[in-house]
Amino acid sequence: MKNFLIAKSRRIRSTPYTSRIEKQGVTAYTSYNHMLLPASFGSLEDSYHHLKQHVQVWDVAGERQVEITGKDSAKLVQLMTCRDLSKSKDGRCYYCPIIDDQAGLINDPVILRHNEEKWWISIADSDVILFAKGLAIGNKFEVKIIEPNVDIMAVQGPKSFKLMEKIFGKKITEMKFFGFDYFEFAGAKHLIARSGWSKQGGYEIYVEDTKSGLTLYDKLFELGKEFDVKPGCPNLIERIESALLSYGNDMNNNDNPLECGLDKYVNLDTDINFLGKEKLKEVRKKGITRKLMGVIVDAKEINVSKSIDLINDKNSKIGELRSGAYSPHFKKVIGIAMLDKHHWEVSQTFKISINDSTFEGKVCDLPFI
Amino acid sequence: MKNFLIAKSRRIRSTPYTSRIEKQGVTAYTSYNHMLLPASFGSLEDSYHHLKQHVQVWDVAGERQVEITGKDSAKLVQLMTCRDLSKSKDGRCYYCPIIDDQAGLINDPVILRHNEEKWWISIADSDVILFAKGLAIGNKFEVKIIEPNVDIMAVQGPKSFKLMEKIFGKKITEMKFFGFDYFEFAGAKHLIARSGWSKQGGYEIYVEDTKSGLTLYDKLFELGKEFDVKPGCPNLIERIESALLSYGNDMNNNDNPLECGLDKYVNLDTDINFLGKEKLKEVRKKGITRKLMGVIVDAKEINVSKSIDLINDKNSKIGELRSGAYSPHFKKVIGIAMLDKHHWEVSQTFKISINDSTFEGKVCDLPFI
Repeated sequence: MKNFLIAKSRRIRSTPYTSRIEKQGVTAYTSYNHMLLPASFGSLEDSYHHLKQHVQVWDVAGERQVEITGKDSAKLVQLMTCRDLSKSKDGRCYYCPIIDDQAGLINDPVILRHNEEKWWISIADSDVILFAKGLAIGNKFEVKIIEPNVDIMAVQGPKSFKLMEKIFGKKITEMKFFGFDYFEFAGAKHLIARSGWSKQGGYEIYVEDTKSGLTLYDKLFELGKEFDVKPGCPNLIERIESALLSYGNDMNNNDNPLECGLDKYVNLDTDINFLGKEKLKEVRKKGITRKLMGVIVDAKEINVSKSIDLINDKNSKIGELRSGAYSPHFKKVIGIAMLDKHHWEVSQTFKISINDSTFEGKVCDLPFI
Repeated sequence: MKNFLIAKSRRIRSTPYTSRIEKQGVTAYTSYNHMLLPASFGSLEDSYHHLKQHVQVWDVAGERQVEITGKDSAKLVQLMTCRDLSKSKDGRCYYCPIIDDQAGLINDPVILRHNEEKWWISIADSDVILFAKGLAIGNKFEVKIIEPNVDIMAVQGPKSFKLMEKIFGKKITEMKFFGFDYFEFAGAKHLIARSGWSKQGGYEIYVEDTKSGLTLYDKLFELGKEFDVKPGCPNLIERIESALLSYGNDMNNNDNPLECGLDKYVNLDTDINFLGKEKLKEVRKKGITRKLMGVIVDAKEINVSKSIDLINDKNSKIGELRSGAYSPHFKKVIGIAMLDKHHWEVSQTFKISINDSTFEGKVCDLPFI
């Protein structure tokens, strides 16, 4: 696999942390919501092992916020997601598929409810703000929609709790998963959620005061020495092992949430009003014809930059691989694939071509671990 | 300036031409509408000189299409742009600022009118499809909105006319600027427009039939040998010299079209209905407080990855540089900057810091050439 450089420009915005991570050894970027998102600090495998044992600080400012405030804000937020938010509580995070009127996925953000009239949609990589604005204008909703100046840094890994406790005290370790609250540091209050895009535990700090946030960034590295803190980023291997889906990779606007195994975030049997509800009821009635599952392939490496066909022994396509990585845990390639109906049986085998060689693989359930 | 790799994934989609340009020596990518857009083939300056003398074929599939069809399609398209399309004609392209209800720019596409009930919006880098869907749903418009399978290749440079004539005959050289028509090649009809993101002349081929399109791609290189054809991409130096604005670089949702010198695409005095019209009338009445202008700096190199302040001799900020490149033509750095009111005088001087050194610059009109 050849390597290519990324061309930087103002269009793919730097974050407040960019100059720091460049001194700390970032080696590759991707673009996420028109912003630079670090993709590696040297070896992906080294970073994977480190994340599972220690603690990392991640520049994930590319997870932008869509702030919706005003009288009709709850109505607009509910209109965009198939998850029932009628019993949602202030100070809590909610993972919510956002879908259009055809039930095609538009994003899969975490939504933060500040209160009934103030919401943050912490988005994956698509311009949800434009969808929200279009809907608000068309429906004449009384809302204000902006992208606030919020740049998230994540603190992830098993030692994140000890590190954060050193700075914010015992109280932060008592916060429940997907709860959030405000914590003071260096003259500013920071919204901190117990969340993050790994299954190793940790926090996301929603930095609104950049100056204080940068002081905090440096403090995390200073106080984190005893926990072997390192800079990092969402890790491809870890997130596939944990089956954390990636919008744009594992699913996009051509997929609906039921095909993506998001059933528990699809509430069709309450009287809430959201786009694509009738369409999803139809899908549920007829049954889905494909679904996301795990696959394990007897190979030592893979780079998935586009879908790769999965072929059965009759030479028919039975699905497509959408993400994949070599897992040091399984000592095989693992991946997330969309499988056609009649090919969902666990242990079903298939062939896949990687770098012009053919390998054997088998279907499995998600998550892997 | 350090170099960083781009991390490839399915989320930043490959194009049908990606495997070809990787054999042909692409060295850097950027991401554009969630797709790989080549950013250089070796030296930017060599490519600049070549583009101005010969002919290049560009993979610009990242310029995605938003297809709007149906009874209310003309109404929806007009609602999104401040340019009066009431007298638009079938088979023509229109450069149109798309703005929201606050008159903030959302995109600056070329809109292709197939007919009254079928439009393609050929977009710069933002998810216009989500804005269009939101507006259509909210307004209950009878339209169908999709991203069709269209992958543009551009043929640009002074010899593009000779090369295209060899394949498509005399007729293609008679097409007027911003006209489009269908031309047959290898069993498929291709929409070809006389357009492109350089001022060196040429065409954009909207490839819907991928197989025929790839045959055409190869044919262009085969027949183009006598014109010294090379692979290329939008060239930073050439586009700044020609003052072709780049959405996300030179302007974004915080800017309105009057601030960006797009006055001739703003039609406030007809009775058409579009978002942000009242807001723009207010802006026109009060007068703008900043505007995009050119700058020339007495320096030999620059890399603009974020805004750079322009400072006057009283140490006050008078504006910010948003794009810049060293121009072999002027033997200086040229750039596009947003200048605050009272600092619009041509030849006004300023100081700018590049790589920790201070340089002198002066304000000028656009375009440079």
